[in-house]
Amino acid sequence: MSELADFNEKISDLFRLRALQSHLSWDQQTKMPPEGASARGEMMAWLARKHHQSLTDENLGRIISSLEKQDLSPDDQANVRLMRREYDKASLIPEELVNRMTKASSDAFMAWQESKSNSDMNSFLPHLRTLIDLTKEKISYLGVESTPYDVLLDDYEVGMGVKDYDPFFSNIRQRLVPLFQAIQSSSTRLPEWPDSAIIPESEQESFCQNVINEIGFDLKAGRVDRAPHPFCSGLWPGDTRLTTRFDENQPFSSIYAAMHEAGHGLYEQGLNQDFAFCPRGQAVSLGVHESQSRFWENMVGRSESFWDVAHSWYDECFSSKPEFDKSSLYNLVNQVKPSYIRVEADEISYNFHIMLRYEIEKKIFNENLPIEKIEETWNNLFEDYFGIKVDCASNGCLQDVHWAYAAFGYFPTYTLGNVYAAQLYEAMQEDIGDLNQVIAKGDWTPMKTWLNEKIHIHGSLMEPTELIEKATGKEPDSEPFLKYLESKFSQIYQL
Amino acid sequence: MSELADFNEKISDLFRLRALQSHLSWDQQTKMPPEGASARGEMMAWLARKHHQSLTDENLGRIISSLEKQDLSPDDQANVRLMRREYDKASLIPEELVNRMTKASSDAFMAWQESKSNSDMNSFLPHLRTLIDLTKEKISYLGVESTPYDVLLDDYEVGMGVKDYDPFFSNIRQRLVPLFQAIQSSSTRLPEWPDSAIIPESEQESFCQNVINEIGFDLKAGRVDRAPHPFCSGLWPGDTRLTTRFDENQPFSSIYAAMHEAGHGLYEQGLNQDFAFCPRGQAVSLGVHESQSRFWENMVGRSESFWDVAHSWYDECFSSKPEFDKSSLYNLVNQVKPSYIRVEADEISYNFHIMLRYEIEKKIFNENLPIEKIEETWNNLFEDYFGIKVDCASNGCLQDVHWAYAAFGYFPTYTLGNVYAAQLYEAMQEDIGDLNQVIAKGDWTPMKTWLNEKIHIHGSLMEPTELIEKATGKEPDSEPFLKYLESKFSQIYQL
Repeated sequence: MSELADFNEKISDLFRLRALQSHLSWDQQTKMPPEGASARGEMMAWLARKHHQSLTDENLGRIISSLEKQDLSPDDQANVRLMRREYDKASLIPEELVNRMTKASSDAFMAWQESKSNSDMNSFLPHLRTLIDLTKEKISYLGVESTPYDVLLDDYEVGMGVKDYDPFFSNIRQRLVPLFQAIQSSSTRLPEWPDSAIIPESEQESFCQNVINEIGFDLKAGRVDRAPHPFCSGLWPGDTRLTTRFDENQPFSSIYAAMHEAGHGLYEQGLNQDFAFCPRGQAVSLGVHESQSRFWENMVGRSESFWDVAHSWYDECFSSKPEFDKSSLYNLVNQVKPSYIRVEADEISYNFHIMLRYEIEKKIFNENLPIEKIEETWNNLFEDYFGIKVDCASNGCLQDVHWAYAAFGYFPTYTLGNVYAAQLYEAMQEDIGDLNQVIAKGDWTPMKTWLNEKIHIHGSLMEPTELIEKATGKEPDSEPFLKYLESKFSQIYQL
Repeated sequence: MSELADFNEKISDLFRLRALQSHLSWDQQTKMPPEGASARGEMMAWLARKHHQSLTDENLGRIISSLEKQDLSPDDQANVRLMRREYDKASLIPEELVNRMTKASSDAFMAWQESKSNSDMNSFLPHLRTLIDLTKEKISYLGVESTPYDVLLDDYEVGMGVKDYDPFFSNIRQRLVPLFQAIQSSSTRLPEWPDSAIIPESEQESFCQNVINEIGFDLKAGRVDRAPHPFCSGLWPGDTRLTTRFDENQPFSSIYAAMHEAGHGLYEQGLNQDFAFCPRGQAVSLGVHESQSRFWENMVGRSESFWDVAHSWYDECFSSKPEFDKSSLYNLVNQVKPSYIRVEADEISYNFHIMLRYEIEKKIFNENLPIEKIEETWNNLFEDYFGIKVDCASNGCLQDVHWAYAAFGYFPTYTLGNVYAAQLYEAMQEDIGDLNQVIAKGDWTPMKTWLNEKIHIHGSLMEPTELIEKATGKEPDSEPFLKYLESKFSQIYQL
C-alpha cells in the first residue's frame, strides 16, 4: 500500500469513529431510554479512547511527516495539513490529562444542572475551579505563542486570537452600544405576542415543515426530531439530522430554531461527499457553520420580505391565533430589549452576551482572575452592557452549559457567525440581485445554490478566513453586519 | 496486564463493535432517511471488517489457548469456551470468502426483492446458486464431522445436527399431520374477523402498549418503534428496542407481533448486565430466544385466559369494532388452516413450514439437490403437508428473506423455540401453580420472574440444551408441545 493510501485509510477510520460518536450522541439526545444513560456514557468514552489511540498513533505521525515533503493534490494537501494540526495537538496532551478532563467535565455537568436549578453559583465554583485549572494545564502542554487564551480561541476557530478579537469586538461595541441605547430611549413600541396566545405543537410543526422545505433542506437525506436543546448532526452522506423543540406559548422560538438548524443542515448536506471521511470534507469552522445558521435564521427569517411568504403559513398552519399583519409580524420578531438569556436575545444584544463572556474568559486565562471574582465581574459587565442588574445566577453566569464542559474560547465564534452571515448576504446580493425580492418571491433556491457553491462544497480545503475572502471578494469584515443592524433597527425603531 | 484482563479487554472491544452494529441496524430499519442507505451500507461493512480483524487476531488465539489450561471461574470459563468456538470458525474461513459472501448476499437480497414482487423464481436462481456454492465452500473450510448440513445447523443452534433434528421432526410430523387433517375434516367453524372491520393504528398501538406493560417489558430501559419487519434489538444495559407494525385490517397481527417481540425483549432485559460485553452475558441461542417470544405470543397470548384480561383492552382501546365475547376472540385467534406464508401460520401448521424448509435444505447440502429442482421439490412437499397447491413462487420458496442472505440452517430453531416454550410452560406450572389462573388474574409478574431466574440471568453460562434441562428438570422434549397442541385444538375444534 502506498503511503498516501495508508494515510487515507487511517484517517477514514478516524472519521468513521467520529461519525459513530455523532450518531450515538444524536440518539442520546432524541431516542435513548432513560435507563440507557450509564451504558451510553461508557460506550461514548470507549469510542473516545479508540479515537484518541488512533489519532496519536506514531505511525500516523510518521506518515504525515513524510507526506508533507511530497507533491500532493490540493485535496490531499488539505488533509495532511489538517491532520498535522490535529495530531500535534492530540499528541502534546497526555492521555491521563484527557481522562481527568473527561471525568471532571462529566462531574461538572451534573453539578451545573443542579446549581443552575438552585441558582447557586457557590456549589458550582469548585467544579469551575477544577476545569479552569485543568484547562490551564492543557494550555501549558500545547505551548503559548502569544497569550494563553489564544490557545483556546484557536481551538474553536483556527487562526483567530486575542489580537484579532480585541479590535473586532471593540469596533462592534463602539457601534452597537449606542444603537442599543438609542432603541432603549426610543418611544416606539413594537407589538408583542400576547401571553394568552397558545399555538399547539402540531401546528408549529407544520409551519416549521414549510420553512425547512423552503430553505431546501432535503428530507430524503435527513430527518427532523425533537430534543431539549436543538442541534444539527451531519452524520454521513445522505444522513443529516436536525432537531427542534416546541413551546406552545412561543411559536417563534421553534420557527427560528428550525431555520437556524436547517441552515446548519444545508451546510452539512452541501459538503463534498467524496471527502466524507477525511478532514477535507468537513465543515471548516464553528464560525463559518454559525454563519450558515444565522444567515437563514436572521438575514432571511427576520427580514421584512420573509413575512411576504410566511404570512400565509401563519394563516394556514395556526388555527387560532392573534391576527397580525405582515408588518406587525416583522416588528414582533425584531423586538430589541435587554434579556438575561443569550439564546433568547435580539440580533443586537446577542453580541453583548458574547463580548461579556469573551472579556471574562480573557481575564481568567490571561490575567488570572480569581475564580470567586467571576460572578461579580460578570454581573458588573452585564449591567454595563444591558443597563439592568442580573437577578440570579441562573440568569447570569450559570445560564450556558459551555463552561460546564470546559468549552472556554467557544463563544466568539457565535458573533463571528453573525458577521460572516452579513458579509455573505452582501456578496450574494451583488451576484444574484436584490435578496429582498428573492426572499419575497418564495423561491429560495438561488440563495441555497450560491451558498452551496461558495461555501459548502469547499469543506475544509481552505482556512476559514481564506474561504470567506474567496466567497465574498473581501477580507472578513464586520462592517456589513454593523451596517445591516444600524439600517434595519433605525428603520424599525424610527431613530 | 494479566492474560485474563487482556482477554477481557479484547472481547469487550469485540462486543462493543457488535453493539454498534446492532444500533446502526436498528436505526437503519426505523429512522434512517432513504438517501442514507448507501453510506450506511459502507459503514456496516466497515464495522464488520473491524470486527473480523479483531476476532481473528492471532494474539487472541494465543491467549485463548493459554487460558484454556488455567483454572478459571465458571464465568471466565464460559467466555473462553465460547470465544474458542468463535475464533476457530472465523479463523478457518478466509477473509476473501467472507467478502465474496457479503457481496453475493447483498446482490441476492436486491434480486430477491424484485423476484419476489414479480413472483419469478428463475430470476432469483442464479443468486441462489451462488449463495449455495459459497456456502458449500464455507462448509469445506469449516470441516465436516457428520454431514455437511450439520455444519450449518450447528452455526445457528450449537450442538444440534441432523441426528437430533431427524427424529425430532419425524415425531412432530407423526403427531401433527393427523391433528391438522382432523381439523381440516372437522365441521366446526370458528368466527372470523370481518374484512370490513378497520381498527386505526393509534388504537392498535394503545392495545399493544397494554400488553407490553403487562408482560413487564421495562419502557424506561427500552422503546418501541415501527419497522416493516418487526424485530427486537438488545443493544446494551438499559437499552432494549422493540419494533412492531400495524395493519388496519388485521389488529391481531400487530398485537401478537408486539407480544412476540416483547418476549424477546424481556430476555434481553433479563440478561446479567455485568457481562454485557462478553459472550457469557449474551442470549444463549436462537432456539432459546424464540422460546421466549413464543411463550408470550402463543402459550400466554393465544390462551383462553388471556382474553379474561385482554377483553377489556379490546373494549376500551378499539372505538368501533365487531362485538366479540371472550370465547369468540379466543377462537378467532386460533383458526387453523393451510396458509402459504409462515409468519401468518397457526400454531400447528407453522411447524410444517419449518420442516419443509429443513427437508429441502438437507437435500441441497447433503444430497446435492440441483438448484433448478428446488422449486418443484418445495411445491410437492408443500402439497403433501398442506393439501393445497402453491399458487405462485412469492407464496412458495420466495416468501422468506433467509435464503437471500445465505441463512441456510436457520429455520429449525423456530420449531425448537415452540418446543422449548411448551416445556418451560409445563415446568413453570409445576413451580408456581396453574398458569391459567395466573394469566387470568392479570398480574404476570410471577411468570416473568420465573423466566428471569431460570433462563435470562444465565445468559450463555451453559449450553442451550443444558440450560433447558436445568430450568425444567428434564431433557429437551417435544412431548409437552405436542400434548399442548393436541389438547388445545381437540377442544377448540371439538375433535
